[in-house]
Amino acid sequence: MSIGESVKRVDAYEKVTGRAKYTDDLCPKNALIAKVLHSTIANGWVKQMDCSEALKVPGVIKIVTCFDVPNYPFPTAGHPWSTDPKHQDVADRLLLNQRVRYYGDDIAAVIAVDEVAASRALEKIQVTYEILPPILHTDAPLTTDTVPLHEAYPDNILAHSDFEIGNYEESCTEEGLIWFEDHFDTQMVQHCHIEPATSFAYEENHRVIVVSSTQIPHIMRRIISQALGLPFGEIRVIKPYIGGGFGNKQDVLYEPLNAFLCTQAGGKCVKLELSREETFHCTRTRHAISFKLKTGVRPDGQIVTRYMEACSNQGAYTSHGHAIVSNAITGFRHIYQQEKAVKADAYTVFTNLPCGGAMRGYGIPQMTFACESHMQDIALKLGLDPIAFRLKNVLQLGYKDPFLGITCHSYGLQECIAKGRTYIDWDKKCKTYANQTGPIRRGVGMAIFSYKTGVYPISLETASARLILNQDGSVQLQMGATEIGQGADTVFSQMAAETIGLTLDHVHIISQQDTDITPFDTGAYASRQTYVSGMAVKETATLFKEKLLDYASYFLKLPAANLDLIENTIVHQATKEVLITLEALALEAFYNLDYCQHITAEKTVQCKNNTISFGACFAEIEVDLPLAKIKVLDIINVHDSGILINPQLATAQVHGGMSMGLGYGLSEHMLFDAKGKPLNPNLLDYKLPTSMDTPDLATDFVETIDPSGPYGNKSLGEPPAIPVAPALRNALLQATSIAINQLPLNPHILFEKFQAAGLV
Amino acid sequence: MSIGESVKRVDAYEKVTGRAKYTDDLCPKNALIAKVLHSTIANGWVKQMDCSEALKVPGVIKIVTCFDVPNYPFPTAGHPWSTDPKHQDVADRLLLNQRVRYYGDDIAAVIAVDEVAASRALEKIQVTYEILPPILHTDAPLTTDTVPLHEAYPDNILAHSDFEIGNYEESCTEEGLIWFEDHFDTQMVQHCHIEPATSFAYEENHRVIVVSSTQIPHIMRRIISQALGLPFGEIRVIKPYIGGGFGNKQDVLYEPLNAFLCTQAGGKCVKLELSREETFHCTRTRHAISFKLKTGVRPDGQIVTRYMEACSNQGAYTSHGHAIVSNAITGFRHIYQQEKAVKADAYTVFTNLPCGGAMRGYGIPQMTFACESHMQDIALKLGLDPIAFRLKNVLQLGYKDPFLGITCHSYGLQECIAKGRTYIDWDKKCKTYANQTGPIRRGVGMAIFSYKTGVYPISLETASARLILNQDGSVQLQMGATEIGQGADTVFSQMAAETIGLTLDHVHIISQQDTDITPFDTGAYASRQTYVSGMAVKETATLFKEKLLDYASYFLKLPAANLDLIENTIVHQATKEVLITLEALALEAFYNLDYCQHITAEKTVQCKNNTISFGACFAEIEVDLPLAKIKVLDIINVHDSGILINPQLATAQVHGGMSMGLGYGLSEHMLFDAKGKPLNPNLLDYKLPTSMDTPDLATDFVETIDPSGPYGNKSLGEPPAIPVAPALRNALLQATSIAINQLPLNPHILFEKFQAAGLV
Repeated sequence: MSIGESVKRVDAYEKVTGRAKYTDDLCPKNALIAKVLHSTIANGWVKQMDCSEALKVPGVIKIVTCFDVPNYPFPTAGHPWSTDPKHQDVADRLLLNQRVRYYGDDIAAVIAVDEVAASRALEKIQVTYEILPPILHTDAPLTTDTVPLHEAYPDNILAHSDFEIGNYEESCTEEGLIWFEDHFDTQMVQHCHIEPATSFAYEENHRVIVVSSTQIPHIMRRIISQALGLPFGEIRVIKPYIGGGFGNKQDVLYEPLNAFLCTQAGGKCVKLELSREETFHCTRTRHAISFKLKTGVRPDGQIVTRYMEACSNQGAYTSHGHAIVSNAITGFRHIYQQEKAVKADAYTVFTNLPCGGAMRGYGIPQMTFACESHMQDIALKLGLDPIAFRLKNVLQLGYKDPFLGITCHSYGLQECIAKGRTYIDWDKKCKTYANQTGPIRRGVGMAIFSYKTGVYPISLETASARLILNQDGSVQLQMGATEIGQGADTVFSQMAAETIGLTLDHVHIISQQDTDITPFDTGAYASRQTYVSGMAVKETATLFKEKLLDYASYFLKLPAANLDLIENTIVHQATKEVLITLEALALEAFYNLDYCQHITAEKTVQCKNNTISFGACFAEIEVDLPLAKIKVLDIINVHDSGILINPQLATAQVHGGMSMGLGYGLSEHMLFDAKGKPLNPNLLDYKLPTSMDTPDLATDFVETIDPSGPYGNKSLGEPPAIPVAPALRNALLQATSIAINQLPLNPHILFEKFQAAGLV
Repeated sequence: MSIGESVKRVDAYEKVTGRAKYTDDLCPKNALIAKVLHSTIANGWVKQMDCSEALKVPGVIKIVTCFDVPNYPFPTAGHPWSTDPKHQDVADRLLLNQRVRYYGDDIAAVIAVDEVAASRALEKIQVTYEILPPILHTDAPLTTDTVPLHEAYPDNILAHSDFEIGNYEESCTEEGLIWFEDHFDTQMVQHCHIEPATSFAYEENHRVIVVSSTQIPHIMRRIISQALGLPFGEIRVIKPYIGGGFGNKQDVLYEPLNAFLCTQAGGKCVKLELSREETFHCTRTRHAISFKLKTGVRPDGQIVTRYMEACSNQGAYTSHGHAIVSNAITGFRHIYQQEKAVKADAYTVFTNLPCGGAMRGYGIPQMTFACESHMQDIALKLGLDPIAFRLKNVLQLGYKDPFLGITCHSYGLQECIAKGRTYIDWDKKCKTYANQTGPIRRGVGMAIFSYKTGVYPISLETASARLILNQDGSVQLQMGATEIGQGADTVFSQMAAETIGLTLDHVHIISQQDTDITPFDTGAYASRQTYVSGMAVKETATLFKEKLLDYASYFLKLPAANLDLIENTIVHQATKEVLITLEALALEAFYNLDYCQHITAEKTVQCKNNTISFGACFAEIEVDLPLAKIKVLDIINVHDSGILINPQLATAQVHGGMSMGLGYGLSEHMLFDAKGKPLNPNLLDYKLPTSMDTPDLATDFVETIDPSGPYGNKSLGEPPAIPVAPALRNALLQATSIAINQLPLNPHILFEKFQAAGLV
């Protein structure tokens, strides 16, 4: 049995020895180097570009400007394609842009024999701009002079969506309701994956091959095809190991430009690798979303009616666009319930800032910060126990979303809360820290969350897998789903071993995706892979096992129904008598002169289900008021993600998410000057927490068995990042009685708030 | 319709632009370099090796000697594996050898950071040998002092096999038979592919990956597994484009050593590329085979009884060993028939020379030189027309081999002869050149041949293919069979297009084989691929089309039986009304929210059939007696290879084979001194014909329809190289009346013979 075991990662040795091959490792020796010229204004037009001096730089092969690119607008979001034009992503990009929409927009590219030549040439390109005043805030007033970022959106609003369950207006008329209204702001942050966006492209047999660090090779194939105006079949995308993605690489970033530049260099191999600085402001960010919350509660703590308005700062281009804030308001109804009505409005607004895209949690960390801060405030103001108040109103097993049909098939939230509460010694510490004075104070805080699994029914959910028998009875597992550091290769291998009846050393996973040969899968996002792609492993493995037993039936002259496969051995189904090793059978299957078969199996599953994961974070902090600094003393995330395929990997996944949550809660913030120029696009100034900033991270799990998951499992990838920031904010509230409704809780903001409250 | 069209090679653009990626192009930038130390004696032992000075060379990583390698004997021949130990190839190799068996044997290897360091280190290794006298000829007398090359073969005879049809002894007693007895010698030649043997190897996830220029990636996986003592599944072999193989790369050459050296360098990437000199004498050669022929004929030209004794000089190691000369005597009974009996003996003898292996024609060029020279001599001596004599005795349609069951399913030989005869103006020129004098003389000559298709029933014949739908309605065709320059990728693409109902631009072939993911196929040899692997394409394409029509049936709500696929479009089967393009259907298959499927198909075929191809060569030459030089004035090969999938590629195949035949007939010869040291292991001294030496090559075809071939086709890859040498020899005979029974017909040999005959 392999499911549920903390087996070592299948790629552990490669990765700790530094031998694992990432995109740049695979780039041919003689690749040309491309570098992008970015705009130095945030809003306006490129009127003219003079490349004459740049072209004189020795080693420059070609310069392509925004005046040279084809007019094929394309989208970039890593969403499955839709044959319904209304559900297709907004195609608002060109490969290079005359209309500049943010500081750093792509306006030209140099191809040269090496990086030095390319960089020198970039410096010598003369650009003449027409400059417009930058629009940096979603509430920037429109004037008659305002030029919209995109012609199709004259008021700069990309989209507005809303929902209403019950009659909100009527629900507000209930007598005796106590009303709570608040405003919350979240900041723009960046994913900060170790490996910057990197790709290289070359032509082969009149097709364009792109090797890229991406979460979504099959989607990338489609988007490059759109951007270059070529059929899907003439694009091939290869995905090696990648050094992190966190949603940034669920977008197609510079790969279409890279592919185009290759075609402009006669099909030679061209590499385009972003610097860290470019990765910061020229890829994607987590959307800064502002929330207004209004909740009507009875004095006993029963929520009667709720409203949320969410406004998302999209930045310059659509990318995942409105899907993020739309997911946030959907998540708003997937955690607490109310007696009468809930209503929400979501807006996504273009500004002259870097483009918001997908990032671990997809709008839910923002929403949860607002919602869980709000819930804490209500409880305290009503004099209720904050946990009891939550438990009274929280979603229950069997909940079914009235719009999407998403159903809560398994439910371990209450136990998650109980475990966290015990771990942090909640009840005692709440009392201990009740009335503190002095410059150093402590507090405990908590937050809960829910998260769905995959994207059904909002989008297509499909996955395919292939299994290939080797002559020694081991198998190759070929997935369309991608390993992006999360351990997918390992858990898929465990699933295949379990279902076929192999020991894990008999499963070799093919980590690299290649759209020419890899079974189709949309990729790593939405915490979908163990759930959706895991189902593809299970069904393909079942089919593969049937084929093995069919061949064994031929060879052993026994009905297949009398056979089983256990631990690499064909046994009698009833007696478990060993009949033949799989190794011996495999040799026959390959080389039998009477009847040979190369046994493989391939299958697509279409997932038409979804389920909800839960969890809670409990944190204990110490606040130094004069230094305006929070120290995390202890913190735990407790997750209900159904059955864990590999508990140790699940723990590592939670550690990573908590670390991301700590940075989100305490320090990370992309800053811009009044002209929209980024102020801290580097790891020195941005304040990503290092290992020295990170406390010990405690984790625990409540293993429910989700009946809709292939192995009882449900989402785990994104959830860990969600509840940390509000738990810290609520701990700060307990410690200081200061409710801070914005992120991050960094010294700059804390000092301001402490000063205003007279604490310092 | 694509079959039978001379479409452009699918890899033409890549190859003529120099952009196609071969093994070395794919080698990582930072690969270590390995070089092999070869013995400088032909027979004996390495007693001692001192690497201390070599290890001091800066940049040397490791030196592995013949005292360090594991004791896993392995074979090297590119034969399918057999689960029957008796049919397995002789495992007589180690990775490096203390027992030195030829000048150039592998005794140590250096791994260094670059080629210079590796080469310098090689020079500094001190070797102490115990020297034995070299055995260079198959008839070298054994003495009590003789140490056999391999302990298992004390008399140095690897194998002897024979057959007898009818009662040979009795047949010899017929009264009035005229007897002809002759001896023929063929020489050792080398394949001289453009790309030398090249590979690189690295470890990944505890597996060894070998990228190699090979014809047989799946077989190579098995042999490396044997040589390293690792399970099949822990070896992965990748085959990029290759610059020629001709059978030399149907052997596993230095890949096992390369794989081992990688494991000795901590799994780092190690490249092992042979020089041209090493390729000459350290890879494989065409066996020098000597023949004795004895034929009993009635005065009317009816052959009554025949005998052949063939003795093959194996060189130092087994490789394909006895299979070659065994094939030669089998071919002996597959071309002419006799009234009463035929008998043959074949011997394979080890000598201290480079190792004979597979080379285009696999023993048949040697046998055909002997047989067709002999037939010519008989006809002339009997005063018969040589063509009429051949036609009287030649194999006929429906012939079935009594041992192997190989059957002649289609037969165009007579028409081939007729076409060649007309082309060369045979009858007229025979008369014109009948009685010449003077120093410059002309002559015409001809020879015929037959050749089987694939290796059934001698060995396993199996092939698999996979087809993968792209979103634009194009497909990827993934073959286990290999493109080795012969055009396999193109003809497989044509087959898939034909059978599915696509235009050729809708088929993208995956040229690279990767044993982890590629459907199983034994590889490119025995002229088997269009016949055996072509059947896999046909059956897989049929299955794939069924799946497409099934999906169309779902989408169009029409029975699949009412649908057909013609030119990338789903049409009504009866009316041919266009219903939907495959592109639109493919998008639905990928993205339909109700029912999506990634449509692929994969299938193995096992071929239990064989058939015989035929052909004839007619040549006109001019002989300069004082210069002892032959000039080819005109030459044609006419082939019956069944239906031609791509006539232009077939023509190119014939051109290549004829060019090889010209070199074999006129100039190529590997020479050794008395100690077994090679004298001409380079392209300057070896005398491979260049384009300047090559006359215009005429070709023609007789397109029979072979009922056993997937598209009416049968073998074509090897046959063109077979009949050229005897046709030239017979033309020389006509021009000069000098019968030369050895090859090559180079000035050195001609001068000797002309002088002996008093012509010069």
